[in-house]
Amino acid sequence: MEIQRVVRDLVTTKRNFWLASKSLRVVENASGKLEVAVDPIGCKPGDFVITIGTSAARLALDDPKITTDLTIGGIIDHWSEEDW
Amino acid sequence: MEIQRVVRDLVTTKRNFWLASKSLRVVENASGKLEVAVDPIGCKPGDFVITIGTSAARLALDDPKITTDLTIGGIIDHWSEEDW
Amino acid sequence: MEIQRVVRDLVTTKRNFWLASKSLRVVENASGKLEVAVDPIGCKPGDFVITIGTSAARLALDDPKITTDLTIGGIIDHWSEEDW
Amino acid sequence: MEIQRVVRDLVTTKRNFWLASKSLRVVENASGKLEVAVDPIGCKPGDFVITIGTSAARLALDDPKITTDLTIGGIIDHWSEEDW
Amino acid sequence: MEIQRVVRDLVTTKRNFWLASKSLRVVENASGKLEVAVDPIGCKPGDFVITIGTSAARLALDDPKITTDLTIGGIIDHWSEEDW
Repeated sequence: MEIQRVVRDLVTTKRNFWLASKSLRVVENASGKLEVAVDPIGCKPGDFVITIGTSAARLALDDPKITTDLTIGGIIDHWSEEDW
Repeated sequence: MEIQRVVRDLVTTKRNFWLASKSLRVVENASGKLEVAVDPIGCKPGDFVITIGTSAARLALDDPKITTDLTIGGIIDHWSEEDW
Repeated sequence: MEIQRVVRDLVTTKRNFWLASKSLRVVENASGKLEVAVDPIGCKPGDFVITIGTSAARLALDDPKITTDLTIGGIIDHWSEEDW
Repeated sequence: MEIQRVVRDLVTTKRNFWLASKSLRVVENASGKLEVAVDPIGCKPGDFVITIGTSAARLALDDPKITTDLTIGGIIDHWSEEDW
Repeated sequence: MEIQRVVRDLVTTKRNFWLASKSLRVVENASGKLEVAVDPIGCKPGDFVITIGTSAARLALDDPKITTDLTIGGIIDHWSEEDW
């Protein structure tokens, strides 16, 4: 899993059916690279999270038909800019 | 998922059977790296999109037999060169 | 999918059973990085192709038991060094 | 598999159900990049380990429903900073 | 598939059950990056090999329950430092 920081929400009005009802967050890694993750937990900007990739991203959701390749798996309790 | 921009269509007359009837788009990321994605939505050059990789790319299509490893999952509503 | 160029054939006399009867090609990307792909189409050196990764690489072949992680999916009609 | 070094434990009180009962470790690679792996073996900080990615990460656990994309597969017997 | 060179054997006394009976090799790529692969063929240090990743790594073995994400698929007949 990767350690990433939540940047903001992502709005995509015109989107794939399977992703339709899910919250999407823009996340960044230690290098500043941006990606988009499904958030089943309810994170807010600034939270440091672990993100799950590969097929596990789908299985981490209640409905594995949600076609994501990146899902937020947890909010890290103690993590700061320096730990990264 | 990645955030990418649609560059143009891709024409491949001689192609794999499973990809035969699908629209392919050349997409680029923030670093200018090019990839090819199946487009089930109908995007036009310049659109900022989220792209889905891994096995989820196949499941994001009506027919999971389409052997893609990258599928456009949605058009981002508000995104510009500066957000990247 | 990636855009790659066919460099040459690859000969491996001693190889895994599942790959035994398949044509292998050395392919390179825009950065010159080399990889090996199964070629179900019949490409020649210099062809620009799209290559399929992840589990879709196996499904793109007639026999999904062929244990490849990269398969040539099509020859691009119009592509040159400048487009890369 | 990758060769990584265990850095420390990771605490995430608010986490995905499927990861709930598993020990998580922060691991780093030769470049200092940090990732998070499930540890079914019991490693301590400083151990050099091999980590398993892709869908094999899940299958390496007793319960393949644990939605991890990285699992520690073994502790390397003889490895030091110089071998890396 | 990647083109890699076998560096040496890897010994991990304390390892995951599913990997227990398999030969592991440290392999390097053209950039000198090290990885660990299961070797079902019997390679020796210095051999240039093709390695298979993704779920195909498991399927390339007799027993797909072996939880590897990288498996040696063949020894390349003619390859040298210059071809890399």
